[in-house]
Amino acid sequence: MDDKHLQEPTVSTKKIFEGKIISLQIDTVTLPNGKQATREIVRHPGAVAILAITNENRVILVRQFRKACGRSLVEIPAGKLEPGEDPAECAKRELLEETGYRAENWRHLHSMFTSPGFADELIHLYVATGLTMGEQQLDADEFLDLMKADRAEVERLLATDEIADAKTITALYWWMKELAKAGKE
Amino acid sequence: MDDKHLQEPTVSTKKIFEGKIISLQIDTVTLPNGKQATREIVRHPGAVAILAITNENRVILVRQFRKACGRSLVEIPAGKLEPGEDPAECAKRELLEETGYRAENWRHLHSMFTSPGFADELIHLYVATGLTMGEQQLDADEFLDLMKADRAEVERLLATDEIADAKTITALYWWMKELAKAGKE
Repeated sequence: MDDKHLQEPTVSTKKIFEGKIISLQIDTVTLPNGKQATREIVRHPGAVAILAITNENRVILVRQFRKACGRSLVEIPAGKLEPGEDPAECAKRELLEETGYRAENWRHLHSMFTSPGFADELIHLYVATGLTMGEQQLDADEFLDLMKADRAEVERLLATDEIADAKTITALYWWMKELAKAGKE
Repeated sequence: MDDKHLQEPTVSTKKIFEGKIISLQIDTVTLPNGKQATREIVRHPGAVAILAITNENRVILVRQFRKACGRSLVEIPAGKLEPGEDPAECAKRELLEETGYRAENWRHLHSMFTSPGFADELIHLYVATGLTMGEQQLDADEFLDLMKADRAEVERLLATDEIADAKTITALYWWMKELAKAGKE
């Protein structure tokens, strides 16, 4: 892809904050017109998210409190990458830890930037099928409700705004697209 | 929705950074088990994104450089809310400014949190149809390439990873779902 005419080379970088999960820096860049501008940039380790579909064609969802949003959200299982961790391995780990499920079949759908205007967070989205129940292994300080929803329940949750998480909506639209293509809706 | 058992009341808030676009704070919270934990939280003004579909059934896309991601991304038109701005008005403004198009018909699809683990950014996603061409009105320091893509081209862009932006993938899956339901794919 030819994007040289759009690029913004770095003039300088100033580190503002280094946290447990994210860090913040301000880059000064040169714009395509030669002027300078600043960019506020959040660095994040990246994450995985899993659309896990049971043999009864229901999706696994978790409800958890999201302090940043000031409310709880219903989401597909997800979690941050450990340093150096392979995303596919992370996806298997997170699905087991959060939900207790193991999956026979894994498919990588997309790796997508969640907030490209200010953050480098990349979410690797997987579809998991052929589920078998193992044992949930939550972290000591992790609290969530486990749910299963069929196609009709998913429609209801989307309509009522209980599902308001972007990665979850992406995954569910993909699922509904596949069901529609297969004539199952 | 009953989520009292998941909530994390704030003990204290520490402001770390106040930028032009985002701010950063660290909240100390009480977990459901009574322990305390910290939450790194990015505040963002919110944004709109527009899936604009031409009368020839092509979607409007823009390619722009995203410094946080270190690459350019192909995205649906989008932009930040001005203080106090109505999201529906912002969507009309951004579509006109970035692409030169006006739209007759507007439909709100979802308001979704892009990165609920660490940010409060909420994107209001709209579908716009009945397009007529006006005049593009880019900011002086805004640089982007305008593109149109039909269903087949969208599939190609998704497969080659040129489209790697979450809000764009969400919108395009919705579109493909609607096409599949209408038997047009």
